[in-house]
Amino acid sequence: MSRYSEDEIIARVFAPIAGAAALGLKDDAALLAPEGAPLVVTTDTVVAGVHFFADDAPALIAKKALRVNLSDLAAKGAEPIGFLLGLALPGDWTNDWLDAFAAGLAEDARAYRAPLIGGDTGATPGPLTISITALGRAPRFVPRTGARPGDAIFVSGPIGDAALGLAVRRDPALAARLPAEARDHLIGRYLLPKPRLDLAPWLAANASAAMDISDGLAGDLAKLCRASGVSAMVDLPAVPLSAAAREAIAIEPALFETAMTGGDDYEILIAAGPDAAPPAPAGRIGEIAAGKAPPIFLDAQGKPAFFKKLSFQHF
Amino acid sequence: MSRYSEDEIIARVFAPIAGAAALGLKDDAALLAPEGAPLVVTTDTVVAGVHFFADDAPALIAKKALRVNLSDLAAKGAEPIGFLLGLALPGDWTNDWLDAFAAGLAEDARAYRAPLIGGDTGATPGPLTISITALGRAPRFVPRTGARPGDAIFVSGPIGDAALGLAVRRDPALAARLPAEARDHLIGRYLLPKPRLDLAPWLAANASAAMDISDGLAGDLAKLCRASGVSAMVDLPAVPLSAAAREAIAIEPALFETAMTGGDDYEILIAAGPDAAPPAPAGRIGEIAAGKAPPIFLDAQGKPAFFKKLSFQHF
Repeated sequence: MSRYSEDEIIARVFAPIAGAAALGLKDDAALLAPEGAPLVVTTDTVVAGVHFFADDAPALIAKKALRVNLSDLAAKGAEPIGFLLGLALPGDWTNDWLDAFAAGLAEDARAYRAPLIGGDTGATPGPLTISITALGRAPRFVPRTGARPGDAIFVSGPIGDAALGLAVRRDPALAARLPAEARDHLIGRYLLPKPRLDLAPWLAANASAAMDISDGLAGDLAKLCRASGVSAMVDLPAVPLSAAAREAIAIEPALFETAMTGGDDYEILIAAGPDAAPPAPAGRIGEIAAGKAPPIFLDAQGKPAFFKKLSFQHF
Repeated sequence: MSRYSEDEIIARVFAPIAGAAALGLKDDAALLAPEGAPLVVTTDTVVAGVHFFADDAPALIAKKALRVNLSDLAAKGAEPIGFLLGLALPGDWTNDWLDAFAAGLAEDARAYRAPLIGGDTGATPGPLTISITALGRAPRFVPRTGARPGDAIFVSGPIGDAALGLAVRRDPALAARLPAEARDHLIGRYLLPKPRLDLAPWLAANASAAMDISDGLAGDLAKLCRASGVSAMVDLPAVPLSAAAREAIAIEPALFETAMTGGDDYEILIAAGPDAAPPAPAGRIGEIAAGKAPPIFLDAQGKPAFFKKLSFQHF
């Protein structure tokens, strides 16, 4: 049975029926009221067994569900207005679980000034499913489509920690070979991404294009390039790695590919004019190029690296 | 194991952590930008096996998922701006299914001028789960909290059809006793609610309080009264019933309670000043009263009717 890929669902099924504010569904968020301070709206659904483990701490599940949405706002240059929560609870939920979930959500709502402004709670015969819609305002909406040849490419922080954290959780043998500190760092970055809302003002003022990295740096850069009608050249040794990621890759070199393609980073991928100084601690990893070729990733020897798959795919 | 009820989850778990725009989570939608033409945002999640049958026609599933959200906008006096779609697809989806789903969604998006403006598609190991967030603008936001003693209570159309349609689908013996036309009417009203967006301007201009009836007239009126700090008196013989509903109730009198408490009506429950003429075809069913007693439902003999449960509950 031949089926659409995840990208094809968006491009072939939903983009043709989407409205103008959807920007062709090429972006992470919808743009409303393009005059004045644009209102930015985004939605992401997370499912137990797909995006998190059902027995993860409920406060962490709540925070991750919210943060992946705030990360989209940040990438668009927006500060949060608030969010709506759609919660489908499986049969075995308890008061304690729900209290802890709500407490985690409230902590983050305060920390990121993103109040809960509505929602819907119901039952599901399936796994816990959390659908959050976040709204924000941006002085300027940073599109995915604005990258131009010659732009510098920045990433807002270390890449691959979360994908390696997931690998560590799935592979006890790998976990056993890592120092506890490195293991905890990687798992922590998988459990609890940090939305880069601190960079939103810089992005609104300086970025020609941006998106948050949720499905892997390699694949998400390819998406940004397709949306902008450009290509790119990335210097892989310039991609920032945490000390923990370097330790894991030293033990198992194949994990470098996992780090570049695995996803769940929630750092921001940025294209900005060649003269833009990157916002600390973002680092330059390459340059946007003319043409429609897929991005090229050069290794330490200057040779193109080939990844088996560029990004996480649900289907 | 003692657990929160569905209402307690909202009142005790989420309302305390919600922002001001959430209106204490006492409403169906969030109110943003109370100055000028308010932006109204609402979200509802529907799950196969809970809110619809997994083998229902995909176009009908899509339309119902959208319409239950548009119904919330209508009840707030808002006209649609657009909507976001969060789609969690089970393992057995096919291109044909998804094409038909999107076609149904597009038809309704055009018919109700509610463009798709964003979304998120992923996989679930569980049942099909559709989370829609709808945005609208209202000249005036119609709250759930504004009912005052002496207000007339209106409903926008026949009550109970959808709950009876569900009963007919679940009970082949009942279905066999109903004329085909009545059966088809009731099932049709379950499958495809009609959001009363035509009433939104009237509501914004005239209603003191309103909500759409999704969980049963009796329970939803009790919610509206609690939110407004009032009581109510309903004349049950005045509640409009379709010819098909009357046929079903004639065959099985217990179905009258199903009609009053079963939900999925997506008609609008309205409180308006005593001098307001109801918008056609809405009919007057009772009056808001002072006090905090639960609403009283009087039968044809003027005696209070007691319902076993007032409304549909997920938990």
